[in-house]
Amino acid sequence: MRTAICPGSFDPVTIGHLDIISRASRLFDRIIVGVPVNPAKHFSFSVEERMELLRRVIEAEGLQNVEVDRVEGLLADYAKRRGAMVIIKGLRAMSDFEYEFQQALTNKKLNPELETMFLSTSAENMFLSSSMVKQVAGFGGDISHFVPPCILDTIKDRLCKRP
Amino acid sequence: MRTAICPGSFDPVTIGHLDIISRASRLFDRIIVGVPVNPAKHFSFSVEERMELLRRVIEAEGLQNVEVDRVEGLLADYAKRRGAMVIIKGLRAMSDFEYEFQQALTNKKLNPELETMFLSTSAENMFLSSSMVKQVAGFGGDISHFVPPCILDTIKDRLCKRP
Amino acid sequence: MRTAICPGSFDPVTIGHLDIISRASRLFDRIIVGVPVNPAKHFSFSVEERMELLRRVIEAEGLQNVEVDRVEGLLADYAKRRGAMVIIKGLRAMSDFEYEFQQALTNKKLNPELETMFLSTSAENMFLSSSMVKQVAGFGGDISHFVPPCILDTIKDRLCKRP
Amino acid sequence: MRTAICPGSFDPVTIGHLDIISRASRLFDRIIVGVPVNPAKHFSFSVEERMELLRRVIEAEGLQNVEVDRVEGLLADYAKRRGAMVIIKGLRAMSDFEYEFQQALTNKKLNPELETMFLSTSAENMFLSSSMVKQVAGFGGDISHFVPPCILDTIKDRLCKRP
Amino acid sequence: MRTAICPGSFDPVTIGHLDIISRASRLFDRIIVGVPVNPAKHFSFSVEERMELLRRVIEAEGLQNVEVDRVEGLLADYAKRRGAMVIIKGLRAMSDFEYEFQQALTNKKLNPELETMFLSTSAENMFLSSSMVKQVAGFGGDISHFVPPCILDTIKDRLCKRP
Amino acid sequence: MRTAICPGSFDPVTIGHLDIISRASRLFDRIIVGVPVNPAKHFSFSVEERMELLRRVIEAEGLQNVEVDRVEGLLADYAKRRGAMVIIKGLRAMSDFEYEFQQALTNKKLNPELETMFLSTSAENMFLSSSMVKQVAGFGGDISHFVPPCILDTIKDRLCKRP
Repeated sequence: MRTAICPGSFDPVTIGHLDIISRASRLFDRIIVGVPVNPAKHFSFSVEERMELLRRVIEAEGLQNVEVDRVEGLLADYAKRRGAMVIIKGLRAMSDFEYEFQQALTNKKLNPELETMFLSTSAENMFLSSSMVKQVAGFGGDISHFVPPCILDTIKDRLCKRP
Repeated sequence: MRTAICPGSFDPVTIGHLDIISRASRLFDRIIVGVPVNPAKHFSFSVEERMELLRRVIEAEGLQNVEVDRVEGLLADYAKRRGAMVIIKGLRAMSDFEYEFQQALTNKKLNPELETMFLSTSAENMFLSSSMVKQVAGFGGDISHFVPPCILDTIKDRLCKRP
Repeated sequence: MRTAICPGSFDPVTIGHLDIISRASRLFDRIIVGVPVNPAKHFSFSVEERMELLRRVIEAEGLQNVEVDRVEGLLADYAKRRGAMVIIKGLRAMSDFEYEFQQALTNKKLNPELETMFLSTSAENMFLSSSMVKQVAGFGGDISHFVPPCILDTIKDRLCKRP
Repeated sequence: MRTAICPGSFDPVTIGHLDIISRASRLFDRIIVGVPVNPAKHFSFSVEERMELLRRVIEAEGLQNVEVDRVEGLLADYAKRRGAMVIIKGLRAMSDFEYEFQQALTNKKLNPELETMFLSTSAENMFLSSSMVKQVAGFGGDISHFVPPCILDTIKDRLCKRP
Repeated sequence: MRTAICPGSFDPVTIGHLDIISRASRLFDRIIVGVPVNPAKHFSFSVEERMELLRRVIEAEGLQNVEVDRVEGLLADYAKRRGAMVIIKGLRAMSDFEYEFQQALTNKKLNPELETMFLSTSAENMFLSSSMVKQVAGFGGDISHFVPPCILDTIKDRLCKRP
Repeated sequence: MRTAICPGSFDPVTIGHLDIISRASRLFDRIIVGVPVNPAKHFSFSVEERMELLRRVIEAEGLQNVEVDRVEGLLADYAKRRGAMVIIKGLRAMSDFEYEFQQALTNKKLNPELETMFLSTSAENMFLSSSMVKQVAGFGGDISHFVPPCILDTIKDRLCKRP
């Protein structure tokens, strides 16, 4: 059985993330969506909230072989503990590429057995990011094209500052 | 009448910004220089100060069809309210390109009538940015080649920490 | 009256090109789609064929203020002769950006009055290029999503090498 | 059984290619190394030679689940015929990224079931390419660090113009 | 005598930095490793600590013509005061390139006599950065391949949050 | 004595090239401008013509410590034969960067003693290239801002196809 990890902040999960997770789930036997615990960074949703939102969209999508987990410590070590052989990331653009490449080479150095593979983001999600969702929602804009329907209201309630 | 918006933080306005605004003013009938109100970000100059500096350089340059306005809420909505059909941005380099592209696709999604057009920065302003001006001025360096003369003293007074 | 030029090889015109031309036609009073005569380069379609295909898709789209012309000599000189004040190009990705930027700065040097503006390609056309159309058609693949319907058969007849 | 395709010109195969093929062979059940037949392009080695070199290095490496095949027609169609669900490509740098991304989106359009995944090239192979091998060998330089040992002499004989 | 400056935050120094400093020391008569005093930024190590770590690795490496100094004020002015004619920076990737290019053009504007030269990072250090070292060490990961041996324990003691 | 090589096709030399050579001549004791003999590539000017044009602009500029030479075989070997320790290249933009980086890592592999250093092109030459000069001159455009005055007529005579 081949296990892959889809790591990410998912603050919050978008239809772009869901697209990557869903496509990855057809390529490997088991997918672990890994949410790193990083107290140094500031997030809009807590780790628990982000995992809960992920679980709802994964269930709504009917992805049987996908689970959600929190990642404590180094991702390279976590992958070893869970028996995962590959990290899967979506790539949108140049800046993604650079950062992800550096992470991939670092993880390879820390755990030479661990591969990183990149899926190209679908053209229509190329512009989509969690921070863009938060920016638009914060101004009361329409985010229904950006997040899965089953979590739309939860996200709007949390992010929209306007009555 | 075709109206274009030149949005930006302008913290503070540089000769690079002024070059873009001035060139845009020849291409469209009316230009609105839009300063977004974003309380989440930290700026060196207040929205009012930045608008005042912009008005001074636009007047000094003699640009009759350019006005300055504050942008509240989403830029895509603001453009609709003001009857603007196009956003104009200056492009300097790769990192600009990526971010601006993402913004353009997002704005298109939010307001399909609204175009974003990019003007290439003049070669001699390619290295110029507000943050560079602040960095140089903060160390008492000479910024007279970077900001319009009519606001040089105001900016130096505010940014230079040294006597 | 403001005149803009949309230059390109259009070998052949794709729905990506048409999207840029159509959006440009709303921003300026007159659009000249300019096909450069460059005997040094090899094209799959002759200048006349490419202009004919362009005229058919422009008519089918109902773009009243768009004309097609051949560009002899430097584009910067041609723009001056035709009274055009701006060149409009679609930008897809990084490599486009670099080349187009260099062209824009060169044209500015040759004709300081002449601006170059970039429109970001729609997300769904980001991957689309004339050479990709030729590559797919050459192998007998389906190009109906890539070229305007009114010229599909003409292009298939010319490019498909298989019976 | 999950089948992946590693397509490429392999003109000739380098240790960078072999590294990607070898890593891919651990991630999927069957790997088809696909050499496209493209009469329009000029290659230093014929399709048959390139396939023969590939077979030798794959055997020397002991990769049991890897086969070599020629790809006629569109890769997207070939993948369907062979029951392959994913294309695997190595990524070295920005220029690779852009081209590969465009290919991936095109293949997705032509065959929506077909995924493209990217493996980051190992740091020490980041500079390595077939054309660099040919350039160095053509001047009589040492290519022993760039190609697998079992094919070194064959490649040197073919590429080195000096006695 | 030609003097070059290698500026950087060195928070902390890595084997990537040391590689650049060491290679630069063979190209110029005197190298000043310059640590800017920037109270606005947050660092993990104080200026004094970072200079002390640099001095230890430079001594361990036996680099006779390299000294460490603090840079107060603008780097362009500091270079003039110290009689340095060139700044040397290591380049890793695209994002480095953009930022460094902007800095180089700014420094050239501020001090036209001052050149900036870039050394390409060795392939095996391409992924290495101070922030990556801190990230890995913060999770208790192994950083012995990333920092010079003579300062490994000091850095681990400071960065590792785990017992 | 430290010797540096400035390699390039110089087909023909531009003011951008001359700027790099001139700045390099202040940083090292001796500069060899190296023109590679590459029969596989097509050039507008012969090796001898290109070297002659280089010699004229170097003399006109009064650069005493610069010589021009032809490079046969690998640059890495040539550098060793001539006792050069460093290759100096000008960098304009992203595409330059990628190619030059690959060349630098290859040369380092072939001759570990040999460094490659990059000088950033001056902002006003960022758009300048030999091929652009040839393109503009070929259409009878004005190239007097792009090539040194002392060789302007020679280049115009050769490149301008119009009477």
